[in-house]
Amino acid sequence: MSTHFMPAAQAASFRTEKATKADLFRGRGLFLGLNCFERGQSQPLHTHASADKFYFVLSGKARMRVGDETQIVAAGMVVWAPEDVPHGVEEALERTVMLVGMGPPP
Amino acid sequence: MSTHFMPAAQAASFRTEKATKADLFRGRGLFLGLNCFERGQSQPLHTHASADKFYFVLSGKARMRVGDETQIVAAGMVVWAPEDVPHGVEEALERTVMLVGMGPPP
Repeated sequence: MSTHFMPAAQAASFRTEKATKADLFRGRGLFLGLNCFERGQSQPLHTHASADKFYFVLSGKARMRVGDETQIVAAGMVVWAPEDVPHGVEEALERTVMLVGMGPPP
Repeated sequence: MSTHFMPAAQAASFRTEKATKADLFRGRGLFLGLNCFERGQSQPLHTHASADKFYFVLSGKARMRVGDETQIVAAGMVVWAPEDVPHGVEEALERTVMLVGMGPPP
């Protein structure tokens, strides 16, 4: 198995009870993973002190919030949540998969 | 204009002379940008000391190398280039756009 190449969606998994996470890669400077949502699931508004984070929507549709901004996002959208800015997924409007990254890692 | 939401491919641009880069977001911990290649263009093998990097292929097809591994990548592939590991794009086999991220930023 490759240690450097991975189809992003390969690690996606879903649970009816709540949204799921999967780790893809982790180094000293950067973490990469997936956030997977069934329709109706959410991720509470939260903040990372001293870490920048992004989401990249791979599939689906969701209503997201970062700071004072709320948008409905779909495949191809980058969402940037700088350190100390509250962010979350208010509601997945479809089954949704997001690539997420954080530097430095959690 | 939103400071937190951006369609990733929006900033893509191409030049016939060489591959192009675009900055998307930059914080203290993380950088996000695009690498854009016309068919036949490349990115020389290089190394980032003390920074982890990823590529996520948005569109196109390219032959990439990380460490001792070479793979042909297409849309949906994550490529992980840990600190101190040489990596590059040997050849874009089509017009190709990649989301790239680095933590800490360059």
